Amino acid sequence: MSAFLQEARALLAELVAIPTVSAEGRALREGAERVAGLLEALGLRAELQEGYGPPVVYAEGGEGEKTLLFYNHYDVQPPDPLELWESDPFALAEREGAWYGRGTHDDKGELVARLVALRLFREKHGFLPRVKFVVEGEEEVGSPHLADYVRDHRDLLRAEAILWEAGGVDAQGRPYLYAGLKGIVALELRVRTAAFDLHSSYGAVVENPIYRLARAVASLRDEEGRVLIPGFYERVRPLTPKEVEVLSEIPDESESLKSLFGVRDFLGGARNLEFNQRLYAEPCVNLNGFHAGYGGPGSKTVLPAEAFAKLDFRLVPDQDPEEVPELLRRHLEAQGFHDVEVVVLEKGEHPARSDLAHPFVGLARRALEEAFGARAVLYPNMAGSGPMYPFLHHLKAPAVGLGVGYPGSRVHSPNEHIRIADFERGTRALLRLLELYFLGG
Amino acid sequence: MSAFLQEARALLAELVAIPTVSAEGRALREGAERVAGLLEALGLRAELQEGYGPPVVYAEGGEGEKTLLFYNHYDVQPPDPLELWESDPFALAEREGAWYGRGTHDDKGELVARLVALRLFREKHGFLPRVKFVVEGEEEVGSPHLADYVRDHRDLLRAEAILWEAGGVDAQGRPYLYAGLKGIVALELRVRTAAFDLHSSYGAVVENPIYRLARAVASLRDEEGRVLIPGFYERVRPLTPKEVEVLSEIPDESESLKSLFGVRDFLGGARNLEFNQRLYAEPCVNLNGFHAGYGGPGSKTVLPAEAFAKLDFRLVPDQDPEEVPELLRRHLEAQGFHDVEVVVLEKGEHPARSDLAHPFVGLARRALEEAFGARAVLYPNMAGSGPMYPFLHHLKAPAVGLGVGYPGSRVHSPNEHIRIADFERGTRALLRLLELYFLGG
Repeated sequence: MSAFLQEARALLAELVAIPTVSAEGRALREGAERVAGLLEALGLRAELQEGYGPPVVYAEGGEGEKTLLFYNHYDVQPPDPLELWESDPFALAEREGAWYGRGTHDDKGELVARLVALRLFREKHGFLPRVKFVVEGEEEVGSPHLADYVRDHRDLLRAEAILWEAGGVDAQGRPYLYAGLKGIVALELRVRTAAFDLHSSYGAVVENPIYRLARAVASLRDEEGRVLIPGFYERVRPLTPKEVEVLSEIPDESESLKSLFGVRDFLGGARNLEFNQRLYAEPCVNLNGFHAGYGGPGSKTVLPAEAFAKLDFRLVPDQDPEEVPELLRRHLEAQGFHDVEVVVLEKGEHPARSDLAHPFVGLARRALEEAFGARAVLYPNMAGSGPMYPFLHHLKAPAVGLGVGYPGSRVHSPNEHIRIADFERGTRALLRLLELYFLGG
Repeated sequence: MSAFLQEARALLAELVAIPTVSAEGRALREGAERVAGLLEALGLRAELQEGYGPPVVYAEGGEGEKTLLFYNHYDVQPPDPLELWESDPFALAEREGAWYGRGTHDDKGELVARLVALRLFREKHGFLPRVKFVVEGEEEVGSPHLADYVRDHRDLLRAEAILWEAGGVDAQGRPYLYAGLKGIVALELRVRTAAFDLHSSYGAVVENPIYRLARAVASLRDEEGRVLIPGFYERVRPLTPKEVEVLSEIPDESESLKSLFGVRDFLGGARNLEFNQRLYAEPCVNLNGFHAGYGGPGSKTVLPAEAFAKLDFRLVPDQDPEEVPELLRRHLEAQGFHDVEVVVLEKGEHPARSDLAHPFVGLARRALEEAFGARAVLYPNMAGSGPMYPFLHHLKAPAVGLGVGYPGSRVHSPNEHIRIADFERGTRALLRLLELYFLGG
């Protein structure tokens, strides 16, 4: 193993050993301090910034006119279910060419790759380029304070480009990068029709909350997945020719995903460009759960008094996560669902998409292609969500995500890991990007 | 306490002490043997009949030309949750003028009232009238073998009238009787859309089982509760003028139930005759449960792979519980729900309604009114279900239910009880009915 992998492994082992589970408020300050220490060791000035949930680690330093801002997070998902781990989630383990442990990919492995890439840059070129780091501690619980933090520190964070937290290779081993994330807002719908559960024989005269909620849920979209809430699509920014071109270049994974997921067909029979467009560039509504009444074995003649459903909306530019619940309420009201209560579960995240024509996007793609010796896949935004919007909005700079993972990393699951070969090539791509960005072609 | 109440209490204590929980297969043979013993002690020939689940206690004896058949059951509901009982569910306890224990009303208290009424009859009139008893041991699990038992023993069971298992006074203290029960069939609907749960971001392209099942469920009825399955109402026998008259005589409880249940309004705004007609004489569909995906606190961005709903149909003469699942399947198929699987959870029970013009119905009503000194309420059938149909069908005799309970008896719940005053008047009404039936007015 080369020297830089030895070093990476030691750094990663240090970070994985701190159980920074934000959902449980565990070891967050300890994690923040350790991250600050590693950034200082690299030659940056680091500090813990308070007042926005767990400490935000901010660091800056290096030389040059342009600044590159790194966004990462030091918190991790809970390790449960523990019994499914083959080794201690909080002790780095190496097996079959991979490093195992909670956070090895999401996001401690990515942070370490960046530290190592910067160290390699300095060794090779004799100086540290001008970089800033924002490493937060509550990404895994929806980054509830990050938008305020970025707004309040917009001058401090000023940079010409942003490197987003993670990335890697796709299922076919192709390196990929992305220039945006969908927004999200998570809601609950609740219906109560009686003071208590009744014997089901009263179903002849008493309203059933499952029927009411089922009808409300069915009213949200059509059979092909199009959202039927008036005004929902109004703020959707039309795709630029460049965005359509980029979408059409994404390899069509619809057939392989169909068999992997065990689905008969995708919504509306989408494939090729339409599949990519829906998945990466269109908003949607998802039902996460629906619960009411009896769910045990056999039957129970009960008429439940209440029902609830959980759902999330994935949003694209320029939809507004604060407006969507209002549109939903108005829709339900207009459809006669006065009895359906809408509860916003989380503050939500705005959608974000960088300008695909920005030179930084091209540099990042080129760095990947040079390091991997293969064509890189560019996603205008990922299907998932994250707190990218406040950075784009307040810093007026593009953000690109690339990194060291692969689809089998088991992010958020037991036996999370990264493959060492991915880490090595991903880190070399980061180094190449630093060179292209700070030193020119 | 009068001698007959002392005796009743002793008999009831004996039966309650045997934990005949059919759902758990507990003490059923012991219960059957004890019941047979009590029937023998009354002077009947009793035997345990095998081959139809737990033993059926059959007994007959007495003198006369006409025969009255009693249907009761010796099994009870599970006592759970045990911690909510104020005294041991399987030890009879007397508190504030009531007898507490599992089965004190449903159905051991009712059986004891009949034993005592027959003993009082013999003491008063010097002979035992010609009676038969069928006391089964799996009523609380849906009487899965009773229809076969009655069919196979139709000659043995022959009788001119049947006294159904239970009854009592309503919430206003009025004695009531009923001449039928709704049928029932319990089903589960299942939808699976993928091999495993996915991240909710795939909701942009992958079908959601909650949406599919919600739409299927919403297709079953209209906003007023009318079932939309083609053919569902086809076999519904039109009400006779006598049945409509009887329905219109039932006191309107819609206002008091509305406030008791905490409901805004009943389906279709039903009240008075329409309320009674829907509750006691019309079929309906009830959703008992709906479960899919995440149901914990906050949100979880998951796209579940499957969803299921449990439902029951309450049926009226001459609907067929074996036909309804087929009609449902055809309806779902026709609506495009090829992905919704229909699973029949229980064999179901046919609806049953005796001829309201039959003299036995009139005698039973008169007996109640004489014993209570108040007008009795006659229900053409109850809103609930039970295994009455095979008796009516095979014996060609009317069945009437009356008894010793009240709506606060906590049947199936902790602290089940009967009020001693109800027991006393109910037993006197039974005695009066025996006199009217066997001796004439």
